[in-house]
Amino acid sequence: MKKVILDCDPGHDDAFAIMLAAKHCDLLGVTTVGGNGYLENVTRNALSVLEVIGRTDVPVYPGHAGPSTVPLVIADNVHGKSGMDGPKLDPPKRKPETKHGVDFIVDTVMNTDGVTLVATGPLTNIASAINKEPKVAERAEALYIMGGGAYCGNWTPAAEFNIYVDPEAAYKVFHSGIPIYMVGVNLTRQCPVNKDLIEELRGLGNRAGVFGAELMDFFAGGGDAHLHDACAVAWLIDPSLVDSAYLHVDIELNGSLTRGMTVTDLRTLQTNERDVDFDLGSPKKWDDPPVGSPFRGQAPNTHVGMRLDFPGFRKLLIETMASYD
Amino acid sequence: MKKVILDCDPGHDDAFAIMLAAKHCDLLGVTTVGGNGYLENVTRNALSVLEVIGRTDVPVYPGHAGPSTVPLVIADNVHGKSGMDGPKLDPPKRKPETKHGVDFIVDTVMNTDGVTLVATGPLTNIASAINKEPKVAERAEALYIMGGGAYCGNWTPAAEFNIYVDPEAAYKVFHSGIPIYMVGVNLTRQCPVNKDLIEELRGLGNRAGVFGAELMDFFAGGGDAHLHDACAVAWLIDPSLVDSAYLHVDIELNGSLTRGMTVTDLRTLQTNERDVDFDLGSPKKWDDPPVGSPFRGQAPNTHVGMRLDFPGFRKLLIETMASYD
Amino acid sequence: MKKVILDCDPGHDDAFAIMLAAKHCDLLGVTTVGGNGYLENVTRNALSVLEVIGRTDVPVYPGHAGPSTVPLVIADNVHGKSGMDGPKLDPPKRKPETKHGVDFIVDTVMNTDGVTLVATGPLTNIASAINKEPKVAERAEALYIMGGGAYCGNWTPAAEFNIYVDPEAAYKVFHSGIPIYMVGVNLTRQCPVNKDLIEELRGLGNRAGVFGAELMDFFAGGGDAHLHDACAVAWLIDPSLVDSAYLHVDIELNGSLTRGMTVTDLRTLQTNERDVDFDLGSPKKWDDPPVGSPFRGQAPNTHVGMRLDFPGFRKLLIETMASYD
Amino acid sequence: MKKVILDCDPGHDDAFAIMLAAKHCDLLGVTTVGGNGYLENVTRNALSVLEVIGRTDVPVYPGHAGPSTVPLVIADNVHGKSGMDGPKLDPPKRKPETKHGVDFIVDTVMNTDGVTLVATGPLTNIASAINKEPKVAERAEALYIMGGGAYCGNWTPAAEFNIYVDPEAAYKVFHSGIPIYMVGVNLTRQCPVNKDLIEELRGLGNRAGVFGAELMDFFAGGGDAHLHDACAVAWLIDPSLVDSAYLHVDIELNGSLTRGMTVTDLRTLQTNERDVDFDLGSPKKWDDPPVGSPFRGQAPNTHVGMRLDFPGFRKLLIETMASYD
Repeated sequence: MKKVILDCDPGHDDAFAIMLAAKHCDLLGVTTVGGNGYLENVTRNALSVLEVIGRTDVPVYPGHAGPSTVPLVIADNVHGKSGMDGPKLDPPKRKPETKHGVDFIVDTVMNTDGVTLVATGPLTNIASAINKEPKVAERAEALYIMGGGAYCGNWTPAAEFNIYVDPEAAYKVFHSGIPIYMVGVNLTRQCPVNKDLIEELRGLGNRAGVFGAELMDFFAGGGDAHLHDACAVAWLIDPSLVDSAYLHVDIELNGSLTRGMTVTDLRTLQTNERDVDFDLGSPKKWDDPPVGSPFRGQAPNTHVGMRLDFPGFRKLLIETMASYD
Repeated sequence: MKKVILDCDPGHDDAFAIMLAAKHCDLLGVTTVGGNGYLENVTRNALSVLEVIGRTDVPVYPGHAGPSTVPLVIADNVHGKSGMDGPKLDPPKRKPETKHGVDFIVDTVMNTDGVTLVATGPLTNIASAINKEPKVAERAEALYIMGGGAYCGNWTPAAEFNIYVDPEAAYKVFHSGIPIYMVGVNLTRQCPVNKDLIEELRGLGNRAGVFGAELMDFFAGGGDAHLHDACAVAWLIDPSLVDSAYLHVDIELNGSLTRGMTVTDLRTLQTNERDVDFDLGSPKKWDDPPVGSPFRGQAPNTHVGMRLDFPGFRKLLIETMASYD
Repeated sequence: MKKVILDCDPGHDDAFAIMLAAKHCDLLGVTTVGGNGYLENVTRNALSVLEVIGRTDVPVYPGHAGPSTVPLVIADNVHGKSGMDGPKLDPPKRKPETKHGVDFIVDTVMNTDGVTLVATGPLTNIASAINKEPKVAERAEALYIMGGGAYCGNWTPAAEFNIYVDPEAAYKVFHSGIPIYMVGVNLTRQCPVNKDLIEELRGLGNRAGVFGAELMDFFAGGGDAHLHDACAVAWLIDPSLVDSAYLHVDIELNGSLTRGMTVTDLRTLQTNERDVDFDLGSPKKWDDPPVGSPFRGQAPNTHVGMRLDFPGFRKLLIETMASYD
Repeated sequence: MKKVILDCDPGHDDAFAIMLAAKHCDLLGVTTVGGNGYLENVTRNALSVLEVIGRTDVPVYPGHAGPSTVPLVIADNVHGKSGMDGPKLDPPKRKPETKHGVDFIVDTVMNTDGVTLVATGPLTNIASAINKEPKVAERAEALYIMGGGAYCGNWTPAAEFNIYVDPEAAYKVFHSGIPIYMVGVNLTRQCPVNKDLIEELRGLGNRAGVFGAELMDFFAGGGDAHLHDACAVAWLIDPSLVDSAYLHVDIELNGSLTRGMTVTDLRTLQTNERDVDFDLGSPKKWDDPPVGSPFRGQAPNTHVGMRLDFPGFRKLLIETMASYD
């Protein structure tokens, strides 16, 4: 099992990320960050999720309350006031650790070989850890993120919420050299929550299954939702679930319309490692960037998730949820 | 036949746009603009193309030499020094008109009902016409443009060449209220030049066919090319050749990585007029933009071409080229 | 007398610019531009001012209604609904010319040697003229502008109104090579309207004096105002009225806080042509820009007005106003 | 004596800041940050300066190696390869502390009442401390910074070096609510290094005096320099040395020409606390920002140093340098 630190802001879909990671990874700790909700709330929610699945042995370290530069924007329109509205939960019995989440990340990565980071909220803590100890980017085995999109956004036409909230942190991370596996909204839109799935979870009958169904009841709100964050952990657990392309990704900090966009250079898609037909509605073979064009020839820095094996994902999710008491 | 002014910067693919328009439209005039090449060259090239097809009755009006704000960037890496390298052509016998291209556009649109504008170069002239006489945006029947992309660029990862060259002009045009039909690189990548097509053209045996084949020989350069500009005219000629979505498109002026991007709000794709499966590698049904997210609920302003009927396009092209002497 | 075209947006202080130019220059024409007020209003105001001083021989050509790229912002908070509130005026008897202001500028500069342009509104028309005929920048003798500031703004902390309204046009003009004499708010703040001046004008007893006093009554509004636009014409009429420094000035297009700023490189102030002590609250001798610093060594392109001889200006103004019937 | 943490990047002028603070403040510690030179170098330099003046009791804590978001730019053109070229110094006998500088700032401010922060390098560490523990901004008594300028830059026409290096950090700090006393280049240009001063220092004959003279020999390089950083500490030591205005200051993050500018709203200068004539080459009374103008009415957040009592500063400096063994 991979040694993992999960940095998150639960958040309904973060809850599933935690539950997947707690089962299939050596989950060294959970760190929290202001994002979907305020730090106090998402930290409490992380404690609650771990309590539901009986994993109070996993420590929870609160990190940054908000972005490094700009004020925090939360998504209470999506996740409710508590950051994880829906299931009725008693306050968690545990307190979070007193050590700062960033210090936990730095110390753990520097003192433990082969730690994989997973980030399902804004990248504030990850960037801060790299800033405090630049060797974190070399020492960590990889960073799986839910954030951005290869060719679309959700919070704005161009930007996905997690990156939009703290583009400066994302800029730092994508320029740090850490190996990045990016699960963007282009991929997570292939991971819908629907009634069948909700009822199958509820039908499991165990506490985790009912909890999961209640999370989804609120999250889908009678309409649509996608299990964004869970996809990042699923990819880490089973690499065959996601087809990816190795591409150059950079972060737009300045655009009036595009701030927080993960600008992905799709022009080299055909030259990549995997011979997969990501057709994007167009022929597989793309032009090379023209000689003399700006940004030509930038080296790939990100494994960009392009296709999800949704049935495989769903099977993993159901089996995991069924496995808890 | 539709009354058309074609604003262009030939340019190999502009040449095909001219040849299509000259056959299937009431081509009131051609205006030229600095873009693929310098104004002097693209104006000469426009005269040459019309001479090749025996349409020296169509007047050519030079417009702006370069963008309204920033210096001109040309694409001589793609189109050669002349702007249309390849075919050996004598200098055209005609001179261009002395009237400024923008004045021709303004006067024609204001004095003639139902003029459709087609722009296959930077939008400098179109914006200038709207600036000089804002009623042009109301009077023109529509504006077909080759430019931008629904979810990708070519000159940069985010921006297509024509929009990249003069984003300020594009901004003006997309905010002017003129009905826009946008053929972006997402669509034109579905319109490849290949050896079969080149040889079929050459095999037509007439001057236009050989000329077309020689254009493509250089343009494809042994590799790949796409007939970008011709798609815009083809759509105007036969609306059934393109499936489109009616979406909000805005122009990024400020981004460090995204200047000149046609930011297209794909989040509302499922609510549009046509029930077409533009799947973009993801389920057809997209999330509504979340309540409270920026840029939510902006009204569509652009018919964005999404799918090209390439066999249909190819048939139109061959038949047109065969029809000339 | 210098041959002058005055491009303006009257505007109370523009009115004084017109009255100065009409007396001391060979005023070939007045062109108008949306700025302080809407084009229709400022055009009418220009006609009215010329009527008040009996100069209905000077033609008035309306130019652009608003900026080349972005929507127009007007300053009705400063100038009132009419653009020139205060004096009660009958509608002008004349109509404006039908030729577009930009065409008048282009044709006049190209066909007449030694034309000096003065711009006291947004630079929309001037940029458009240079765009339409780039040789205008070479042919014109000089361009005097009221706009910007050497180290301060007024509409925003960093930007002055005229440049703020159309930064793209200003960018074009400052990069065009036309010799620029810039009267910014750093200079015009040395040109206050006060009660003494108002009463001296009223006391002249002639129509122009009373008109001028009524303009100032409204403009100063019981508080403060500065005769911004008049300074540009005064400098042209009598170069000894302004001490200037020859500096590099560029236009910020992208800043969140600084869009429209005339970024003036004061670092080389001590090396300039005139040995004047522009101390700016610091020693006269400035550091050279450090080796390796960005933007080092850019050539001066603008004569930046730094010190106004206000008594001299005032004398010129009073004498001019007294000279009218 | 005020309890002070000095965050710096020595740097020649930082050295004088350290020597002033070590004499006149209760210097709790020195923290270092990448800026004038690389972190390793400036940390060594800080240790060396304290050794020269016999203050090895003051601990030195290395902080961030570079900015939170963008890559570090150093000023080796000004300060040489070592960051403090000139004086020949043995390697310091002490090692720096192992605790991270940001943790020292956070812990000290949270556990000690009335700590004043002084920052004479990029604001990376200060921002990081506020990010890690937002209460630092409330708990600290004040923050004196050398950085920015009220109406000019030095590294670029608009931006001073310290702010230019890490604008995102500056943005965080200026928006944090911490009481800021800003010593910008507009003030420090009033603090020249000249031969008289250098020789007076050398003539003191003590080690500190000779060291100071050797620092200045290199720094002035036969030409000009200003003791930027020392001014910030001098103001803290003796408030009468600086006349200031209480103004709104914000940080430009996005400008093409103005990134890193401390945008200072001078429009309200006349309404401020002190009736000082900061004339800036213009009448004392400024216009109120016009009603309706952007950025109107933003509350002052920064005490901006405007006038330096240079003789008083010089006296303080000489006396301090003479007081060391």
